[in-house]
Amino acid sequence: MTEKNLGIVETKYLTVGNPPDELKLESGEEIGPIKVAYETYGNLNKERSNAVLITHAFSGDAHVAGYHEGDDKPGWWDNMIGPGRAFDTDKYYIICSNVLGGCGGTTGPSSINPKTGKSYGLDFPLVSINDMVNLQSKLIDHLGIEKLLTVAGGSMGGMQALSWLTKHPERIKSAIIIASAIKHSPQQIAFHEVGRVSIVSDPAWNNGDYYGKEVPARGLALARMVGHITYMSDKSMMEKFGRRIRNVKEGHKFNTGFEIENYLHYRGSSFVERFDANSYLYITKAIDCYDASEGKNLCELLQGIKAKVMVLAFKSDWLYPKYQSKEIVKACKVAGIDTTFCEIESTYGHDAFLLETEEETELIKHFLAKVVQNG
Amino acid sequence: MTEKNLGIVETKYLTVGNPPDELKLESGEEIGPIKVAYETYGNLNKERSNAVLITHAFSGDAHVAGYHEGDDKPGWWDNMIGPGRAFDTDKYYIICSNVLGGCGGTTGPSSINPKTGKSYGLDFPLVSINDMVNLQSKLIDHLGIEKLLTVAGGSMGGMQALSWLTKHPERIKSAIIIASAIKHSPQQIAFHEVGRVSIVSDPAWNNGDYYGKEVPARGLALARMVGHITYMSDKSMMEKFGRRIRNVKEGHKFNTGFEIENYLHYRGSSFVERFDANSYLYITKAIDCYDASEGKNLCELLQGIKAKVMVLAFKSDWLYPKYQSKEIVKACKVAGIDTTFCEIESTYGHDAFLLETEEETELIKHFLAKVVQNG
Repeated sequence: MTEKNLGIVETKYLTVGNPPDELKLESGEEIGPIKVAYETYGNLNKERSNAVLITHAFSGDAHVAGYHEGDDKPGWWDNMIGPGRAFDTDKYYIICSNVLGGCGGTTGPSSINPKTGKSYGLDFPLVSINDMVNLQSKLIDHLGIEKLLTVAGGSMGGMQALSWLTKHPERIKSAIIIASAIKHSPQQIAFHEVGRVSIVSDPAWNNGDYYGKEVPARGLALARMVGHITYMSDKSMMEKFGRRIRNVKEGHKFNTGFEIENYLHYRGSSFVERFDANSYLYITKAIDCYDASEGKNLCELLQGIKAKVMVLAFKSDWLYPKYQSKEIVKACKVAGIDTTFCEIESTYGHDAFLLETEEETELIKHFLAKVVQNG
Repeated sequence: MTEKNLGIVETKYLTVGNPPDELKLESGEEIGPIKVAYETYGNLNKERSNAVLITHAFSGDAHVAGYHEGDDKPGWWDNMIGPGRAFDTDKYYIICSNVLGGCGGTTGPSSINPKTGKSYGLDFPLVSINDMVNLQSKLIDHLGIEKLLTVAGGSMGGMQALSWLTKHPERIKSAIIIASAIKHSPQQIAFHEVGRVSIVSDPAWNNGDYYGKEVPARGLALARMVGHITYMSDKSMMEKFGRRIRNVKEGHKFNTGFEIENYLHYRGSSFVERFDANSYLYITKAIDCYDASEGKNLCELLQGIKAKVMVLAFKSDWLYPKYQSKEIVKACKVAGIDTTFCEIESTYGHDAFLLETEEETELIKHFLAKVVQNG
């Protein structure tokens, strides 16, 4: 079987929640209309039974595979999606949408608030992972799909898959939860909070009202630097950068220019080009507040659920350590759910879910074949 | 044996490097005069053979034990130092000084530059761990001590102990290196760089020229927040904070107030009260640039050294992981140095070197007794 890239793809848009049918949020607030950015690849079969929803991580978007016209780089999980790939577009109909509160085309704090004609900024309501998933369910409705073959995602994407499992179990045949957690630990919250404080400490943040003005670039770049450290591993950084020095021509006297420093600066500043600081605040908060177990024992919420579950973790991932994946596995198994778990060897840290695609491909192919087979 | 606190102690000051005898730094620059803040406890014996130098970690200072007049809190390693304690003041003469570049009384960037009559700020020269140790050797000279019984420290203090071992081996009978490393890994450098960027991104930093004006409080507090995450462990944070919420009355809508968030905010803002932002830059840079092996194999530099070495690591310390301690142990053993290593069980993370004092006490007592015995 030859693996292939999808070639040119494009983002589509759907508007839902037109008044008076606004999307009701978990907080009780309502929001609408909402524009949803999404992409689809492959074809929906006659039985409408081959739809796969990919849910993206914190800084991802709807563009998961293929190339946008004129782009050099493909979508963020390209080598997992296409003819012959893990999510085989010859077999499956793949959907991916940008999350509510994001800045990749779906309505978020940078969008225009129809009530004021200006960007929402902090008038945007707090959203939750479950809210994101509720919006996805509206997209699935629109596409005429009653039941997804699977919903698959890593990190925050895994939380969305968990939310589908606990909140919409009748609408999925399976869930693939990668490098994720039932809920954030205080350490995970702490790293996010550092990013948030970094943004709100930037005078340019201006209480979220910076659209059309100077953006809080320093704060957002610094937040991303912290994030990147947590996405890598001690070992991967050692292999990639060691203690190599790169000559730095500008800057103050503390710029000795270890390569790792330059790399983080680069990742920070390039992030500012593509991400909105307020979306950073809203989405990290949604992740931190998410608790699939709703303060109870997760296995109680999973009783009677028929969907199959696959959970994947990565050995060097210290941000979402294996024990968090195993907590999901245990809750599923205790609830009688057909669950499979695999820890993948990797030195890439949390980023492994985006990079260790060979092993992920085999595991996901076998899992999906079983889900299809068992009807 | 009854353990006792030292009671009231005070900081003393010594001035060294008066022109034309400035301290020559590794960079080639010279600096002087330098004020050195130090404390001593216990009595130097007639043979001058019972002196112990304690070297402090990044944010420590000369006040390692006992109480300053009017203070509620003792020095930073108080339960390790005093009659009957690990560093027994009935037996040993204990010395601790604030490092060069610090802000605890020893000359640093916040000190007055005699050439300008204003604070040095960024005119302060870059200093190294070896420079800090060279300054300590001048203090030891002043105290009339030719050879230290031991030099002991954790974290950056361990690097200073290593520097004594490689650069002044004839002046120490032993070294106790706790939760430290031959050199920083890129991950360790990365966390420090985040702190530095946080400070220099604060407009109040003003290229280091903020003395007598508004200090870069936000940047310094944020840097400390990141630091604190790395000093704790996933487990200790879970035990201490879990996902508990504390009501927060003020602030923006993202303040849901997880206890861990409030704790980090508190630690950040209280750090600003006691630490200088420029010292943060100088000292973290000194740590990141330190390489005991000087780019070679450390064991080559240790050939023929007679001092005994004890290395301690802590199980949950992910900032200075055990493998880094074992690299020191291996280099020492290959060089034929009498070396002992112990990994202490702890959930406290890197902070364990300040907290697991019971086990440290036993290990250090036995080690020092041996050093004394083998004379």
